Amino acid sequence: MGFRLIPKEEKFFSMFEQAAQNMERGVLALKSLVTNFDQVQRYASEVKAAEHDGDTQTHEIIAKLDKTFVTPFDREDIHALTSKLDDILDLAWGVADRFVLYQIEQPTPQMVEIIDLLVRSAAELRKAISKATHLKYDNIIEHCVEINNLENQADQIVRHAVADLMNAGGKDPVEVMKLKEIYEHLERAADRCEDVANVLESIALKSS
Amino acid sequence: MGFRLIPKEEKFFSMFEQAAQNMERGVLALKSLVTNFDQVQRYASEVKAAEHDGDTQTHEIIAKLDKTFVTPFDREDIHALTSKLDDILDLAWGVADRFVLYQIEQPTPQMVEIIDLLVRSAAELRKAISKATHLKYDNIIEHCVEINNLENQADQIVRHAVADLMNAGGKDPVEVMKLKEIYEHLERAADRCEDVANVLESIALKSS
Amino acid sequence: MGFRLIPKEEKFFSMFEQAAQNMERGVLALKSLVTNFDQVQRYASEVKAAEHDGDTQTHEIIAKLDKTFVTPFDREDIHALTSKLDDILDLAWGVADRFVLYQIEQPTPQMVEIIDLLVRSAAELRKAISKATHLKYDNIIEHCVEINNLENQADQIVRHAVADLMNAGGKDPVEVMKLKEIYEHLERAADRCEDVANVLESIALKSS
Repeated sequence: MGFRLIPKEEKFFSMFEQAAQNMERGVLALKSLVTNFDQVQRYASEVKAAEHDGDTQTHEIIAKLDKTFVTPFDREDIHALTSKLDDILDLAWGVADRFVLYQIEQPTPQMVEIIDLLVRSAAELRKAISKATHLKYDNIIEHCVEINNLENQADQIVRHAVADLMNAGGKDPVEVMKLKEIYEHLERAADRCEDVANVLESIALKSS
Repeated sequence: MGFRLIPKEEKFFSMFEQAAQNMERGVLALKSLVTNFDQVQRYASEVKAAEHDGDTQTHEIIAKLDKTFVTPFDREDIHALTSKLDDILDLAWGVADRFVLYQIEQPTPQMVEIIDLLVRSAAELRKAISKATHLKYDNIIEHCVEINNLENQADQIVRHAVADLMNAGGKDPVEVMKLKEIYEHLERAADRCEDVANVLESIALKSS
Repeated sequence: MGFRLIPKEEKFFSMFEQAAQNMERGVLALKSLVTNFDQVQRYASEVKAAEHDGDTQTHEIIAKLDKTFVTPFDREDIHALTSKLDDILDLAWGVADRFVLYQIEQPTPQMVEIIDLLVRSAAELRKAISKATHLKYDNIIEHCVEINNLENQADQIVRHAVADLMNAGGKDPVEVMKLKEIYEHLERAADRCEDVANVLESIALKSS
C-alpha cells in the first residue's frame, strides 16, 4: 500500500466526528433515562460519562486549534461549533442530574416528546458534521433546516407544557419550579442544537 | 438620469435598515398589546408577525454575508448586529405569548413603564442604524449612550418590581413565578438593545 | 535614566491588570458582605462601587481596542476577556443587591462556601492576567486548571444546595425562589471566571 501521510486537517476532522458521535451518545442516554425511569441512576451515569468525555474532546480540539495555523474552516466557526456541541451535553447532563436530585417521580409525556425531538436533532447534527468534515456540503442546508424545525417544535411544546403546569392550579409551587426548570433546560438544549446548525450552515455557504 | 449600478453594499445597508424598522414595529406592537389589553390576542399576533419577518430577514442577511467577500463593516460586527436585533424580537414575542398563555389578567404598571423604555430604545437603535448604514458616524455614540441609560432604568425597574412582588407576601407563588418570568424577559430585551448599541459604538469607533 | 517611551501595549497591559484587580476587589467586598451581614448595606455599596469602576474600565479598554491597530493579543480575545471580567462584577453586584432587595435574613452556609471559591478564583485570575500581561505564559495553564476545578466545586455545591432547598418541604415557596435566584447568580459568576480562564488558556497556547 505504501506510505501515506495523514494531513493535519484529517485528524481535525476525525476529532469533530467523534465529538458529534459522543454528543449523540449523551442524548440517547437521556432518552434511555426517561424511557427506563426505574433505572434513572444508571442512565444518569451514562449521560454523565458522555458529558465527561465531551469535556476532554472539547479541550483537545480547542488546544489543537490554538496551535494550528491552517485549519479547514474559519477559526471562529470551529470554536463556536465545538463549544456549542459541548453545551448540548452539559444541558443533557443538567437534565439527567436534576431528575435524580429533585427526586422527580416520573418524567412528563411532554418531556419524553421533547427528548425524542432532541434525539432526532442529534442524528441530523451528526450527519451534517460528518458531511462537513468530508467537505461534502451539498445537503448540509437540508439537515440544518430540519434541526431548525425540530427546535421550533420543541419550543412550542415547552412553552405550552410550562403554561399548562402553571395554569393547572392546586399544584405544589415548588414541584412546579422543579419541572419548569427541567423544561427550560431541555429547551436550551434544543437551542444549542440550532446554534450548531447555524454554524454548519455558515460553513456550507462560505464553501459553496 | 441614466443607468446606475446599485453597489452590493447599498443592498446590504437597506437590508439592515429594514431589519431595524421591523424590530421597532415588533416593540411598538408589544406597546399596543399592553395599552389595549382587551385585544391581547390581536396584538400578540402582530408581535408574532414581526418576529416571523425578522427571522426571514436575519436569515437573508447572514446568507448574504457568508457569500460576500467585501462588506461595509467587519463580518463579526454584522453577525452580532443581526442576531442581537433578532433576539430583541424573539424576546418581545416571548413576552406577548406569555401574556396570553399564562392568562395574565392585567399587565402591571411597571411592565408598561419598561415597555415604554423599550419603545424609546428601539427608536434610538433604528436612528443609529440608519446613520451607520449611511456612513454618518457623527452622532451614533449619543444614541448608544442613551440606549445604555434606558437599559439601566429598565434594569432598576425590573429589579425593584420583582423584589416588591416577592416581598408582598400572601400572593399565589405560581402567579409570582409567571410575572417574574415576564419581567425577566423584558429585562433581557433591554439587554439585547444595549448589546446592539455596543456593536454600533464599536463600528463607529473603528470608522472614526 | 534618560527618556523612555511607554509603548502603547504597556498601557493596554496596565489597563488589564487594573480591571483584574478591580474585579477581585468586588468579589472580596461580596465576601465581606456575607461575613459581616449586619453591615450588608455598607458592603453592598462597596460591591456596587467596584461594579461601577469596572464599567468605566471596560468602556475604556473597548474604546482603545477599536482605535488600536496593533494589539498584544488577538482582538477577539481582548474583547472576550474584558467583557467576561465585567460580567463577574455585574453578577457579584446582582447577588449583593438581591441580599438587600429580597430582605434575606442570613446567607446560607453554602452561599458563603461558594463565595469563598469565587474569592480563590478571583485571585487565580488576577495572577494569571498579571502573567499574561507580562508575556510570561509559563504557569498560566496551571491557574486556569485551578479555576476550572473551583468552578466544578461551585457548580456541585449550588446544584445540591438548590435541590436540598426544594426537597426540604414546608418552606415558603417565594423564599425558595429568592434563595434559588441568588444561588444561580453565584453559579453564573463562577461560570464567567471559567470563561475568562478559557480565554487566557487560548492566549497562552497561541503564544507558546
